Amino acid sequence: MTHPLFTKHEATLSTALKAIRERGYWSPFNEMPSPRVYGEHAASEGEAAFKALLNNHFDVDQPGTEGKVGKEASPFGFPLSVTYPKANADVLLQAASLAQGTWRRAGPAAWAGVCLEILTRLNTRSFEIAHSVMHTTGQAFMMAFQAGGPHAQDRALEAVAYAWDELKDIPETAYWEKPQGKNPPLSMEKRFTIVPRGIGLVIGCCTFPTWNSYPGLFADLATGNAVIVKPHPAAILPLAITVRVAREVLGEAGFDPNVVTLLATDPGDGEFMQKLVVRPEIRIVDFTGSTSNGEWIEQHALQAQVYTEKAGVNQIVIDSVEDMKSAARNIAFSLSLYSGQMCTAPQNIYVPKDGIQTADGRISFDEVAGAIQQAVEKLLGDPAKAVELTGAIQNSGILERIESARGCGEVLSDSRAISHPSYPEAVVRTPIITKLDASDEQKYLKEWFGPISFIVATDSTEQSLEIAENAAASKGALTLSVYSTDEAVVENAIEASVEGRVALSINLTGGVFVNQSAAFSDFHATGGNPAANASLTDAAFVANRFRVVQSRRHVQARDSADS
Amino acid sequence: MTHPLFTKHEATLSTALKAIRERGYWSPFNEMPSPRVYGEHAASEGEAAFKALLNNHFDVDQPGTEGKVGKEASPFGFPLSVTYPKANADVLLQAASLAQGTWRRAGPAAWAGVCLEILTRLNTRSFEIAHSVMHTTGQAFMMAFQAGGPHAQDRALEAVAYAWDELKDIPETAYWEKPQGKNPPLSMEKRFTIVPRGIGLVIGCCTFPTWNSYPGLFADLATGNAVIVKPHPAAILPLAITVRVAREVLGEAGFDPNVVTLLATDPGDGEFMQKLVVRPEIRIVDFTGSTSNGEWIEQHALQAQVYTEKAGVNQIVIDSVEDMKSAARNIAFSLSLYSGQMCTAPQNIYVPKDGIQTADGRISFDEVAGAIQQAVEKLLGDPAKAVELTGAIQNSGILERIESARGCGEVLSDSRAISHPSYPEAVVRTPIITKLDASDEQKYLKEWFGPISFIVATDSTEQSLEIAENAAASKGALTLSVYSTDEAVVENAIEASVEGRVALSINLTGGVFVNQSAAFSDFHATGGNPAANASLTDAAFVANRFRVVQSRRHVQARDSADS
Repeated sequence: MTHPLFTKHEATLSTALKAIRERGYWSPFNEMPSPRVYGEHAASEGEAAFKALLNNHFDVDQPGTEGKVGKEASPFGFPLSVTYPKANADVLLQAASLAQGTWRRAGPAAWAGVCLEILTRLNTRSFEIAHSVMHTTGQAFMMAFQAGGPHAQDRALEAVAYAWDELKDIPETAYWEKPQGKNPPLSMEKRFTIVPRGIGLVIGCCTFPTWNSYPGLFADLATGNAVIVKPHPAAILPLAITVRVAREVLGEAGFDPNVVTLLATDPGDGEFMQKLVVRPEIRIVDFTGSTSNGEWIEQHALQAQVYTEKAGVNQIVIDSVEDMKSAARNIAFSLSLYSGQMCTAPQNIYVPKDGIQTADGRISFDEVAGAIQQAVEKLLGDPAKAVELTGAIQNSGILERIESARGCGEVLSDSRAISHPSYPEAVVRTPIITKLDASDEQKYLKEWFGPISFIVATDSTEQSLEIAENAAASKGALTLSVYSTDEAVVENAIEASVEGRVALSINLTGGVFVNQSAAFSDFHATGGNPAANASLTDAAFVANRFRVVQSRRHVQARDSADS
Repeated sequence: MTHPLFTKHEATLSTALKAIRERGYWSPFNEMPSPRVYGEHAASEGEAAFKALLNNHFDVDQPGTEGKVGKEASPFGFPLSVTYPKANADVLLQAASLAQGTWRRAGPAAWAGVCLEILTRLNTRSFEIAHSVMHTTGQAFMMAFQAGGPHAQDRALEAVAYAWDELKDIPETAYWEKPQGKNPPLSMEKRFTIVPRGIGLVIGCCTFPTWNSYPGLFADLATGNAVIVKPHPAAILPLAITVRVAREVLGEAGFDPNVVTLLATDPGDGEFMQKLVVRPEIRIVDFTGSTSNGEWIEQHALQAQVYTEKAGVNQIVIDSVEDMKSAARNIAFSLSLYSGQMCTAPQNIYVPKDGIQTADGRISFDEVAGAIQQAVEKLLGDPAKAVELTGAIQNSGILERIESARGCGEVLSDSRAISHPSYPEAVVRTPIITKLDASDEQKYLKEWFGPISFIVATDSTEQSLEIAENAAASKGALTLSVYSTDEAVVENAIEASVEGRVALSINLTGGVFVNQSAAFSDFHATGGNPAANASLTDAAFVANRFRVVQSRRHVQARDSADS
């Protein structure tokens, strides 16, 4: 079975398959918001398209609409005033079940082809999506473009590639012939039908609405499932645009657009969500958000395959460096980027209390801490440049957390407000860095989401690695970073990362940052510690979203058929 | 990385990989208990080896032994009087964790090589294992040999092949080079380490102790996990032999034998098991058994990946036949084989109350029922031949169930006791067949494990298929069978099987029976209805038993390295 959209995108899919095998650098969707790539007027048209959405109703032509919802506000200081259909979940589930029928029968090639067509169209709307991501998450424009647009599209294609990689290996039919000694063989034809699990529910977060939702959304679609997209109430717009594009493509390809539907809600939707995720029709849940919500789903949605990304404690172990300045510069960037509102941002920095070795001799703990503090201050010294790195603070919970961090210990570098040159109402904050002792575990061994980090004085690098390994294994972590000029220490760090099931970056001093995870190369989360039960993206992320149903019947043996 | 045992078995593994892609007929382990295949004295030596185990202590040189357990009795009428080490679970978990270290580091090729060596040795002991399966499960010898020996070994190798298929595609290292316009590229080396989930717990059943346990056991081993094997208290011996062989191979290959340990128990181990399966060290559970125990594990062992096979309602839909006699003969065999003590044995046979069409004209409902009843009676008429088909009744619960079935409706064919010519104490029973009406759902829509079946009068084939589809979807089912000469009905049956997520057999009248599932070709269970949450064997069965942990560091760009 094939499909015109599969044929259209087959070359891209083939390259993607090669990329997931090699896991070197590959990015089909260009991360540069450049007119040469996206077209001369793409930037202005995208911004205009975004602005046209503001102060308007965003309609989705799907059944079960009963009124409107929508209370998003830009962290840059204005309400979006966009409303969305308020969906009756029962009607949406029915519509999705109905749409599932023809979609399921279309088969793997159609699923992959439609996914690739949706992604290609989303890519052309990267500027519009970038603005919608920026003004829901608080990301600065460049990050909103890259992470919200092409990088999210890359991750989505990666999921489609893994799905196709599994599906293509299941034969549609097989001829089975079992010898019976001197008697004629037993011979059968077997037919294998790929059957999706059912309806997938994708639950988005408020910081990376597209990047974190696309893998689940596209893994579901690429394995034949219908999907209900449930954005975070604070970041609906980027996923609403996505759903609209998906529905357009589905409709044009002759499928029921209700294969993908939008379930927008207003804040305070916790009870509604708890009722929804345990519905028997929901067979797959992809969730990004808090540990408490994620664990609730894992414990209660037993009717579904559940993929969660929750909180964690990301860590940096500093043992020794060539050059403290370049290490500090890299760390400072990671602490400042999107004000630490990233699931991959480092939080705890472990430094031996006796100091560390550098190429220029030994430096003290305070000198290490000072270097990081100065690097942050230098990086964020110019407000106009600073806000393009930090973006704005997504929600008031983060401001409260900064306040709490002030009481935690000795403040090495306090968080300060920056006035955004273009958006005077934007809430912008620089990182707060606090000094703690290794014994302050009850303070630093939990997630402080936001621009909050701790430089923790340890007895030794050995202790630093032990703390890091145990924290990753018991509290969860998406990233671990180590600085050492001693290869034996690096090997110990690798071992600690393996035991803690956490991805490790070694001696980052240049243009790669620990918070960054590149599709087709870096596995985002291992799925092996409490921060996430799945990885973006691997075979395990896709292989259980579908099942195979076989039928078999006798046929004439091929030998006799030939004669 | 490679390993001598990988090299030794690489050709077999390659063929297995080809087999899982094509899913035609392939069986690396010969199912014929013939001297030409297994050696002139294999049969007598195997029987002698089994007899030498009786009335003895079966020692396993593993830590934590505190006394003895073992209360197995042959369904053929004698106590085995074999005892096993009674293990302290805490010590066993510690030993498994410790053993995990070097095993984990050995890597995929070593895991696959060791698995294949274990299987090859188990194969040479197929006669000994056959007797041990026969005298714990009640299977007649031929079935005990085939299902307990080579077919179980085939299923194990299939799991190893799927595991290897996933693992081989993950590169050990990758070179990543991201262009930076006119600046030098960013370049990194990434290392990917396969990390097992942790400790697997394999919980066996009392009817197919090896066939149902091997896939989980070998999938765990092939992905680097340590495994605790917990047999059903009534069928310890086949898995004890298996564990002993696995430990021998592990030890000889230089690994800690505690990678595989035995946790034998006496009947009444429910509370002990509930405490064990929720232990944080247990990261994978493979379970075959009752719905209540399986659901308990699914609901409570949230720290683990859980793969269950539970109860279900298998069904036959009779719409029309060429020849009723050959259909009835095939059905009678399926009802009688191992006295229906198979998770794949049919239970409900739906026949339109107005009768069916045959090549010789229309026949009534009663004629269909009569044909099946006569076929069973003919098949089991000669006690000496009958017992080689039915085997013995595994446990008294099944006898009680037969008694209950008598009160269910009009008995078309009553269960009778057969005296076993060789084992006078054996409990042998022929099938009971009862007539029910479609409205008797509360009676037939639950599993009656054992030689119990119902011929259910329906309004039409349409109703039969509707009942079958709903029963599969809501109660679970491993098999569905349809008889129809009308291709449109067959297509409807395929559709019902897809909606019910159940494997379908069409018009079986020859030497293939609905209860049979061939490794490398038939997927056993779809994992999509309540009878099982996983399939034997597919990618989903293996892909989440391991994780990948990466590390990355900058390296010189290859271009500059070359210059």
